[in-house]
Amino acid sequence: MDINHTLPQVDLPPDMIHLGLGQPSNSLLPIKELDKAAAHCLSKENRFFLAYGEERGNANFRQTLADFLTGQYPNPVDPGQLLITNGNSQALDFICTLFTSPGDTVLVEEPSYFLALRIFADHKLNLVSIPVDDNGIITDVLKKKLETLKPSFLYIIPTYHNPASVTLSYNRRQELVKICAQKDLLVVADEVYHLLNYSDDPPPSMGNWIDKCPLISLGSFSKILAPGLRLGWMHAGVDLVKKMAKSGLLESGGGFNPFTSEIVNSVICLGFLKANIQHLKNVYRQRIKIFCDQLRIHLPNQAVFEVPGGGYFIWVRLPNNIDTNSFRQEAQKQNVDFHPGAVFSHKKGLKNYMRLSFAFYDGDELAEGACRLGKVISENLS
Amino acid sequence: MDINHTLPQVDLPPDMIHLGLGQPSNSLLPIKELDKAAAHCLSKENRFFLAYGEERGNANFRQTLADFLTGQYPNPVDPGQLLITNGNSQALDFICTLFTSPGDTVLVEEPSYFLALRIFADHKLNLVSIPVDDNGIITDVLKKKLETLKPSFLYIIPTYHNPASVTLSYNRRQELVKICAQKDLLVVADEVYHLLNYSDDPPPSMGNWIDKCPLISLGSFSKILAPGLRLGWMHAGVDLVKKMAKSGLLESGGGFNPFTSEIVNSVICLGFLKANIQHLKNVYRQRIKIFCDQLRIHLPNQAVFEVPGGGYFIWVRLPNNIDTNSFRQEAQKQNVDFHPGAVFSHKKGLKNYMRLSFAFYDGDELAEGACRLGKVISENLS
Repeated sequence: MDINHTLPQVDLPPDMIHLGLGQPSNSLLPIKELDKAAAHCLSKENRFFLAYGEERGNANFRQTLADFLTGQYPNPVDPGQLLITNGNSQALDFICTLFTSPGDTVLVEEPSYFLALRIFADHKLNLVSIPVDDNGIITDVLKKKLETLKPSFLYIIPTYHNPASVTLSYNRRQELVKICAQKDLLVVADEVYHLLNYSDDPPPSMGNWIDKCPLISLGSFSKILAPGLRLGWMHAGVDLVKKMAKSGLLESGGGFNPFTSEIVNSVICLGFLKANIQHLKNVYRQRIKIFCDQLRIHLPNQAVFEVPGGGYFIWVRLPNNIDTNSFRQEAQKQNVDFHPGAVFSHKKGLKNYMRLSFAFYDGDELAEGACRLGKVISENLS
Repeated sequence: MDINHTLPQVDLPPDMIHLGLGQPSNSLLPIKELDKAAAHCLSKENRFFLAYGEERGNANFRQTLADFLTGQYPNPVDPGQLLITNGNSQALDFICTLFTSPGDTVLVEEPSYFLALRIFADHKLNLVSIPVDDNGIITDVLKKKLETLKPSFLYIIPTYHNPASVTLSYNRRQELVKICAQKDLLVVADEVYHLLNYSDDPPPSMGNWIDKCPLISLGSFSKILAPGLRLGWMHAGVDLVKKMAKSGLLESGGGFNPFTSEIVNSVICLGFLKANIQHLKNVYRQRIKIFCDQLRIHLPNQAVFEVPGGGYFIWVRLPNNIDTNSFRQEAQKQNVDFHPGAVFSHKKGLKNYMRLSFAFYDGDELAEGACRLGKVISENLS
């Protein structure tokens, strides 16, 4: 059985099932729709999107995206509140350049997205973490930390957290906004999974509160269309958007990704984005059902996890005395892999956790992966 | 007469001829070729370029680009020496993040590309300049400066300089490499105009010397295909490329722009890039002839310039006591505009210069622009 599909960024042995991978299966990448969308926009006479673009992003694309988000969010989104990016990783890098200097403190969640931590490290930032519970970041701890600290910003993943899969509750969102407004603290909310709910709608995007405190909500087409597009957006107050658009990088190069923006503009206008999100939700809902059922069957009872309501991840907790990294090599020998918890902690805690995902493999592969993983964990718990 | 074509990044009055603009006419943006290239690559079954890409850039695209550059350069280029970027502005920003801290010194040329200076300012770098003469940066001055300074890197525009239009001579290239090797100083060479020569070939790209001193040569599709693609490359030693590919930004987001890379891969494979460069050279050669003839007719004798051998720019020098910015508003009232020299100087010198370009307007418009400009300059010299 050759399970793995070509993956440019990750080098996988042919029979490996890497349950840590946080990216969509190749079969879920909508190449036919992108083909039609490219033909739609490249057959036009108007070719402004091949020139240097407007700093905030193509005006028509920001209008199309604002209309789309208005249909998804409880409150209307205005195109003046959007700045188009090359995806959330680039947006984070850009925010660090504009709003931090080496040695500055940035608040992150514990756990947090491990590669965001890498970007912050490249900017030589000092990280301080706030724990997350079932309702998201614990705002009481945040409040206490802010009595002594003056961080450059707070980085959170409020909805379908990566890796913890929890969602910041409505009350906590309000509390967080109140605290950050009082302290004039910039909130950077990574909302890449916000539109991928599999049951009830999540609380409103943090973009709902852009008028209440300094806040940038980051959205991306990586999980709802295709990561290779490297396209996303910032949603923030009009003045903050204007300020960011005045950066040297944008004045020089023009807006980020005007060419791809125009193709995705056609994707949205042709109705493909809405249909694609619906399709992804159906597929992921089925995979979650199969995967969680199989995990329940094969994992020992001491391995605890919640069924995710959205996003990409299952965050498995093992007893405190277990270090999941200690049996990772053994797992790899059994052709199964995962992301150990410690990589999601800037202080190398959370050793008894592991991150799993159902985004890359189909139901049969996930079932087989759950079986292999169960064996390895059981052997290491006994 | 409505001269101006839609320009997303610049807001131009309808009859204005802005001779400062450094971007191609809309009619020179090859939308038909991009349409065919998109159809070519999006009709395939393989869709790896829609996933997170390899950190250095799509492997097949780097091979195609290496082959293309090998055909243009005197020495072969290896795909392992290439890292795909979102264009030179983003590449410069990325280099600043990886190799500098606020307060570090960076050496630039006097004059230098004004928007690069803005990017360096965003990174809070301290700029020190080395003058440029008809043979490019004056290496004796560089050598002297390096006796006391320890800069993070040296930024140069060696071929068809922006704005000075001069080209670093072969001997100076060798001398510069020798100096920087001795001092272990990173050279960042912005070679965006290297492939746009209108008469003899320029000296080899600085990429020719990547084994001799720490050096990154920046190339871009902005001037040879379309700026809106936001696609370029770094050409550097294999180890330096590997080091940069290990950044948090690339580990998180995957390679820059894999989707657009695949479309441009098809552009190259279908032979469109070579044909497009030849077409651009023919068009620009004709425009230069018309524009320089008309400038000679309409500009007073005290306005001195050289006919450019490549690139985009004509660098006009007026007598020392003239500040070109002092009559810019008057010029704008006469529906003609230019970039005053001082913006290309980090210390606001070069006031008696102006940058003109022939890239955005056709021959008739350039002739009319030369006539309007001549009037304004003549009035301000008398």
